[in-house]
Amino acid sequence: MSVTRSQCANAIRALAIDAIEKAKSGHPGAPLGMADMAEALWRHNLKHNPANPDWFNRDRFVLSNGHASMLLYSLLHLTGYAVSLEDLQNFRQWGSLTPGHPEHGHTPGVDITTGPLGSGIASAVGMALAERMLAEKYNKPGYTIVDHMTYVFLGDGCLMEGVSHEACSLAGVWKLGKLIALYDDNGISIDGKIDGWFTEDVAKRFEAYGWQVIGRIDGHDAEALDKAIAEAKADTTRPSIIICKTHIGFGSALADSEKCHGAPLGPDNAKAAKEALGMPAEPFCIAEDVRNAWDAREAGAAAEAAWNALLEAYKQEHPGLAKEFVRRINGILPVGLDTVISNFITKARDAKEKLATRVTSKNVLSELVPAIPELIGGSADLSGSVGTKTASSVIMNPETYEGNYLCYGVREFAMGCIMNGLAVHGGFIPYAGTFMVFSDYAKHAIRLAALMKLRVCWVLTHDSYAVGEDGPTHQPIEQLNMLRSIPDCVVWRPCDSEECAHAWLAALRTQGPTCLSLSRQGLPFLDKGREPAIEKGGYILRDCQGTPDIILLATGSEVALCVEAAATLEAQGVKARVVSMPCCEVFDAQDEEYKKSVLPCEVRARLAVEAAWTGYWHRYVGLDGDVLGLDHFGASAPGGELAKQFGFTADNVVAKALALLKK
Amino acid sequence: MSVTRSQCANAIRALAIDAIEKAKSGHPGAPLGMADMAEALWRHNLKHNPANPDWFNRDRFVLSNGHASMLLYSLLHLTGYAVSLEDLQNFRQWGSLTPGHPEHGHTPGVDITTGPLGSGIASAVGMALAERMLAEKYNKPGYTIVDHMTYVFLGDGCLMEGVSHEACSLAGVWKLGKLIALYDDNGISIDGKIDGWFTEDVAKRFEAYGWQVIGRIDGHDAEALDKAIAEAKADTTRPSIIICKTHIGFGSALADSEKCHGAPLGPDNAKAAKEALGMPAEPFCIAEDVRNAWDAREAGAAAEAAWNALLEAYKQEHPGLAKEFVRRINGILPVGLDTVISNFITKARDAKEKLATRVTSKNVLSELVPAIPELIGGSADLSGSVGTKTASSVIMNPETYEGNYLCYGVREFAMGCIMNGLAVHGGFIPYAGTFMVFSDYAKHAIRLAALMKLRVCWVLTHDSYAVGEDGPTHQPIEQLNMLRSIPDCVVWRPCDSEECAHAWLAALRTQGPTCLSLSRQGLPFLDKGREPAIEKGGYILRDCQGTPDIILLATGSEVALCVEAAATLEAQGVKARVVSMPCCEVFDAQDEEYKKSVLPCEVRARLAVEAAWTGYWHRYVGLDGDVLGLDHFGASAPGGELAKQFGFTADNVVAKALALLKK
Repeated sequence: MSVTRSQCANAIRALAIDAIEKAKSGHPGAPLGMADMAEALWRHNLKHNPANPDWFNRDRFVLSNGHASMLLYSLLHLTGYAVSLEDLQNFRQWGSLTPGHPEHGHTPGVDITTGPLGSGIASAVGMALAERMLAEKYNKPGYTIVDHMTYVFLGDGCLMEGVSHEACSLAGVWKLGKLIALYDDNGISIDGKIDGWFTEDVAKRFEAYGWQVIGRIDGHDAEALDKAIAEAKADTTRPSIIICKTHIGFGSALADSEKCHGAPLGPDNAKAAKEALGMPAEPFCIAEDVRNAWDAREAGAAAEAAWNALLEAYKQEHPGLAKEFVRRINGILPVGLDTVISNFITKARDAKEKLATRVTSKNVLSELVPAIPELIGGSADLSGSVGTKTASSVIMNPETYEGNYLCYGVREFAMGCIMNGLAVHGGFIPYAGTFMVFSDYAKHAIRLAALMKLRVCWVLTHDSYAVGEDGPTHQPIEQLNMLRSIPDCVVWRPCDSEECAHAWLAALRTQGPTCLSLSRQGLPFLDKGREPAIEKGGYILRDCQGTPDIILLATGSEVALCVEAAATLEAQGVKARVVSMPCCEVFDAQDEEYKKSVLPCEVRARLAVEAAWTGYWHRYVGLDGDVLGLDHFGASAPGGELAKQFGFTADNVVAKALALLKK
Repeated sequence: MSVTRSQCANAIRALAIDAIEKAKSGHPGAPLGMADMAEALWRHNLKHNPANPDWFNRDRFVLSNGHASMLLYSLLHLTGYAVSLEDLQNFRQWGSLTPGHPEHGHTPGVDITTGPLGSGIASAVGMALAERMLAEKYNKPGYTIVDHMTYVFLGDGCLMEGVSHEACSLAGVWKLGKLIALYDDNGISIDGKIDGWFTEDVAKRFEAYGWQVIGRIDGHDAEALDKAIAEAKADTTRPSIIICKTHIGFGSALADSEKCHGAPLGPDNAKAAKEALGMPAEPFCIAEDVRNAWDAREAGAAAEAAWNALLEAYKQEHPGLAKEFVRRINGILPVGLDTVISNFITKARDAKEKLATRVTSKNVLSELVPAIPELIGGSADLSGSVGTKTASSVIMNPETYEGNYLCYGVREFAMGCIMNGLAVHGGFIPYAGTFMVFSDYAKHAIRLAALMKLRVCWVLTHDSYAVGEDGPTHQPIEQLNMLRSIPDCVVWRPCDSEECAHAWLAALRTQGPTCLSLSRQGLPFLDKGREPAIEKGGYILRDCQGTPDIILLATGSEVALCVEAAATLEAQGVKARVVSMPCCEVFDAQDEEYKKSVLPCEVRARLAVEAAWTGYWHRYVGLDGDVLGLDHFGASAPGGELAKQFGFTADNVVAKALALLKK
């Protein structure tokens, strides 16, 4: 007798109940509610190979309501990924493969880290776009080597979050027909029945975005789900959302109640639910025939083998394209970038131009974009100001998916999540720009990039009070510190074109997000000696004879002030060393010997100068040093006037240095 | 001959052109495009009194596309506010009343600071809700003392931002019939024609939210605008959006082009535009009859006088209510709060309970909510976990507007902006909670609260790795530092119920945002001696005899570890002082003498212990001290296990202290 689809779905439910009971922690409601949706998608539609979670042409699956992690872990286990029954039994325990929320890079088969609501659906838009753009570039007649779907499960919470609006609106603009979202419409969020805070007409909203809206269907009806998914796939020019009416905690006595959202059912309810679902009482016990019905290994291996064969043939037929494609999907940079950068630096040293680093950054990008086809640029509606659109940048055309530049509109958070989606999909290195102050809007996307160690580059211009006339709403103060303190996030604040070129090269080579902090205003090119150790993140830019009386540390627009101040101090008989510190994270990672050579322990008279929150710099200047920075909001006035008012002048650096020496 | 409405609108255009030309900086496109909308609203609908920008019952006006600041300044000048022609001539200059973006508290008549797109419309939802809730509470038959509209101008950028989705969806749920948004639908954003990134059907989207949608009308047709505004006002149960098709840069040669968005027209275009508009060539010259036509002083004074008379009569009729109303709208706290708090502390000292500070916070709130009618609580769908909903909290009912608690749904950024709107409107002290890690989503709202010095309180629970099983996506690392570095934002991280009570009292008394950092896990009540100086932000919680060998500094959940470690160290002959530092900002503001009494200069062996990014603490421990913190992401496991793995044990504090003393 064959296994029923309900039995398969109930296997997920049973594993979720058991794992959450054992952990005494977790979210049973969503896995129980979405098990039928999962069965329809994973057993009847999803193209994947459990033996190789990294198979490039697999369908992507995004669990945007990541608290339903036990749904995903059950699926991975049952279909044959390297997620064992023991792993499920160690749900939410130290060192296990099954953390509370899905973590990409940690658990095989998890395509993206989710949990923070809304971020999953937003990143899925990037994944679906990546597929279309790679397909456009590399597919050739008879060789459809890029061809996969991006599926998303999401809940009410994701739809409430603003980032879902930003990203889904863009998905409509971009006509992402291979993006299919299944909405777990269960009417419950943590505070209870959502009628009190979520009454919008979701169908109408998504129609407004240009999506195909399917349903409301019964999310526990396997045939209705099949039909809906088929309908969604059939529309290739619009993303689809399938509205699935479900019961949170399906099968348990707590069904349709928020009580099963974020806490174990408890032993009695768990037992009763498993009984009602017709599952054995024994924990973690799945019948052999149900296991067999779920096993996707054979089909998966065959699917990948067919694709591998196709790719081999493609390599013969289109060797140049194939080479580039394979290089890109493996995340390997093209050769020769060192030369591109060193040529740029040679020219910059000759030209010695005074340029804003946002302009310098654009100049570097103008060399990199033609050399790196996987670069995909963009901006949150500030392309001209932030210098992300080069002469080689072509705005992506959603009819053909040609191009290498995205107009994200005024949507910073979605921009960040979409960049994460592009990066985690593979085949792309995304970069995009906005004013630094608006990194606030996108902060959590940057954090998620760091958590996943995704190579994305943020071009954050107008990086200080020197924004000028736009005033305090547009002048960053605390943002540099905010970004630097995100673990595994790297911030570069170059002082001129030479440092900027290094920063870009470092960004391309960093497995994790990089933020470039760039000036609005012109900065002089600084003479640094023949081989400055810029790549070490901090280095002596101008030294004195012997042990310094004082060290001036600075970044970006304030380095030139310190150079000028050092000359003045020298004339007064004060030995001042200037340390340029474009990247604190990279400097911190150097060996102790190098760090001490730059910042000798015995020199305690240290003055840090940076047009930002001062608190950050005490890690370098300690209690005996001083910081010239800004601990209050800015003001609206021309940047030069603000420099005077706020004390960012060489004279004030000299005065502060002398005061410090007198202390 | 009477002045035409076009002439009145063109006066705004002329002033905007002239001021931006003179400043050589600014955004002419939007003021030129929205001048007719402004004429219709401000000359024919807006209830306000230029002589008293703080008149409580005035209509509120929110320029959500704040870059159109010259529109607002022109309106303020022309209608008779204390914004002179000279002020307009000093647009965007140091010390002027006319900064680049409108700043509340800086320029008379600016109801809220805008510029960061989307935040204005979101805060307007809070303002409109404030009006309805105060009306419900204080209006009595014959005494409609609270009765005003909230008007918003917004552009494409605001509608792209996710926060507009969050807030407008809630405005629909809350049936805010007195909220009217006028959408400047000009088809242009900074990157050009919006067709490439903004194609959604805005009308359908807002219908989905439950709004009345009016238009598309011709945004340059005064009569169409009148009719639309009348229609909007007539629907008292739904917020309204009027879609106004306009031409950015109307009247200039750069009309309908992004070129006039963010840069002056240039002398030639400016001259030609003023000529085309029939305005005198001479800069800042407005004909007397046009001035007269705009002058709103007489009508405004009469409107306020009538209201004042009504309020006087109301005081006679309803003295108790009137007294409370006047107290609330003046932002004065009720008397007796000290007693409430000191009684709470007395009980806490007796009980010595081990409680999570999120529970303690709820306990404090349970005393405060009944005592302070202006408190309006809420949560982003985590009411139970964050402890914001007390026994005295009543969920606001959008049919009657009774209640003192808001279910914001999973919408952190809108929650922040709506709290700002409630606070800036007056009559309310908003507080709301979410997990600390999700303060990321709302970060810019907190910044705006700080910039406006608004009294709002963020209840940020689950404030460290001790979140436990939910894993790294839910465990804050860098957030404390992020929040502390926002200028004028105050962060309290109490170690127990006594400190928590102080923190709440301080929050209520602070003109600016306060963030409470609260534990998920239980924390012991600590014996501090009879009168600990908690209100000073940092104080000696446990001292040693004589000069300390080492100072242990800690906050929140790590203070108890240090107390335990100090006892162990003492037993080993090491004199250790424990400093509890619940609020660094308040400690920093103490006089030098006090600070040195807590942290004597000569004691350089200092160990800071906080389960967060270490970099923050070097400002207190310098180069000679050490920090026990977390510079990497967390992990999913029970909190107790993580404490061991990450070294947050008294033993490890002792080991670190001893290592420091050996250095």
